[in-house]
Amino acid sequence: MTRTLRIIGIGAGDPRQVTLQALDAMAGVDAFFVLDKGAEKDSLVAVRRQICDEHLGVGAYRVVEIADPPRDRQPVDYDAEVLRWHDARAQRISAALRTELPEGGVGAILVWGDPALYDSTLRIAEAIAAGGEVALALQVIPGVTSASALTAAHGISANRIGEPITITTGRRLADTPPGADTNQIVMLDADCTFRRTADPDDHIWWGAYLGMDHEILIAGTVAQVGEQIAERRARARAEHGWIMDIYLLRKRR
Amino acid sequence: MTRTLRIIGIGAGDPRQVTLQALDAMAGVDAFFVLDKGAEKDSLVAVRRQICDEHLGVGAYRVVEIADPPRDRQPVDYDAEVLRWHDARAQRISAALRTELPEGGVGAILVWGDPALYDSTLRIAEAIAAGGEVALALQVIPGVTSASALTAAHGISANRIGEPITITTGRRLADTPPGADTNQIVMLDADCTFRRTADPDDHIWWGAYLGMDHEILIAGTVAQVGEQIAERRARARAEHGWIMDIYLLRKRR
Repeated sequence: MTRTLRIIGIGAGDPRQVTLQALDAMAGVDAFFVLDKGAEKDSLVAVRRQICDEHLGVGAYRVVEIADPPRDRQPVDYDAEVLRWHDARAQRISAALRTELPEGGVGAILVWGDPALYDSTLRIAEAIAAGGEVALALQVIPGVTSASALTAAHGISANRIGEPITITTGRRLADTPPGADTNQIVMLDADCTFRRTADPDDHIWWGAYLGMDHEILIAGTVAQVGEQIAERRARARAEHGWIMDIYLLRKRR
Repeated sequence: MTRTLRIIGIGAGDPRQVTLQALDAMAGVDAFFVLDKGAEKDSLVAVRRQICDEHLGVGAYRVVEIADPPRDRQPVDYDAEVLRWHDARAQRISAALRTELPEGGVGAILVWGDPALYDSTLRIAEAIAAGGEVALALQVIPGVTSASALTAAHGISANRIGEPITITTGRRLADTPPGADTNQIVMLDADCTFRRTADPDDHIWWGAYLGMDHEILIAGTVAQVGEQIAERRARARAEHGWIMDIYLLRKRR
């Protein structure tokens, strides 16, 4: 009998950013699987618990924690190490699905933002489904992305009329070809890479802890606010012990 | 006294895709302003009405319709005509905000998908706020984008590990520079432009009427399904009188 795994986007940090579709999908779940609990930040765990407590009832849902396998954070071959780590993770999750869910049962994983955007859960689930050790039907519920949360918080559009948008990471930012850098939404940039790649008069809209009590927003040209963002980011990270941030970089016309 | 205008993303077509944050923002609204009602499709009007009826109560909310000014659909200068039309539209909306909302009142415009992505409402509202004829505080509520609805419906990620993503339109698709065309999410492409720009072995995931009863999904290489998508699109458009579609185009590795 096939087990069902729902991968559910729950928005970018504000517990009210969850959709009714996500709440529908959370009802009737036999077990919520929580990955990398050890690495996850208390504030994020709290937001997720708040959503479940409020909509499913305190103590009325089952959580299964799956510890992460060890990971090399400074690998020679980044992509190969990510693939290896995903594989090791998939094996642990596959085992948990078999032992913690009844045949025909429904499991779920709650994902920050949208499951399609820079999140590994869906790839891991596909690897498990393809592996064949457990018959698995996947269902994906879209969520509000941190990109949408950022632009909404600043009250801006992602682009000027008709312009394309690039979504990329700090690690790849320097590789964006000329002509594709008009509007760039950048995730996962611990190094504030824009300070090396952007023009001084590029406009930047930066946000951290979007939708949370300690949300921070800074906007201006890179010349005006670039260093301020880097400093504020370092300070907030030290203060809270973690940070989740994103920015939009726009070329001057 | 300042009037407040809330620009609220309500998701890509499924009425359950609305967020709790959007419902919170819809409560306490004095008037919902509906733009381009004439041009809008009955199915979309029905979805929006369903959301309002269900969460605010049938007959318990006020709707103000604002007819669109005429627009040149085949302009010599596309950007200039869009700007001119937005300006004419902004004047009508500004007048409606002054006459239909009390001072200190709260208006709202419900937007498909996310207000930051290829939607003109926010730009129009900014023009009104900047115009100074009515003191206006803008609030933006993010929504699930049609891009997220597409990838969720197909059960896929928007990219392979670490790859960037380009979001563009059919009109601009041919301008995507080499190196930025690995993953392209394409909106507003009535001409199925991918048939001219894509390689035969590019993979395409196409979706129309996402989240609605008559949702259509087609996936495969452009060689396999390109013409099928164009035919299916034309047939569906004729059958329903309108179409809203989007696709993801991915280069072979």
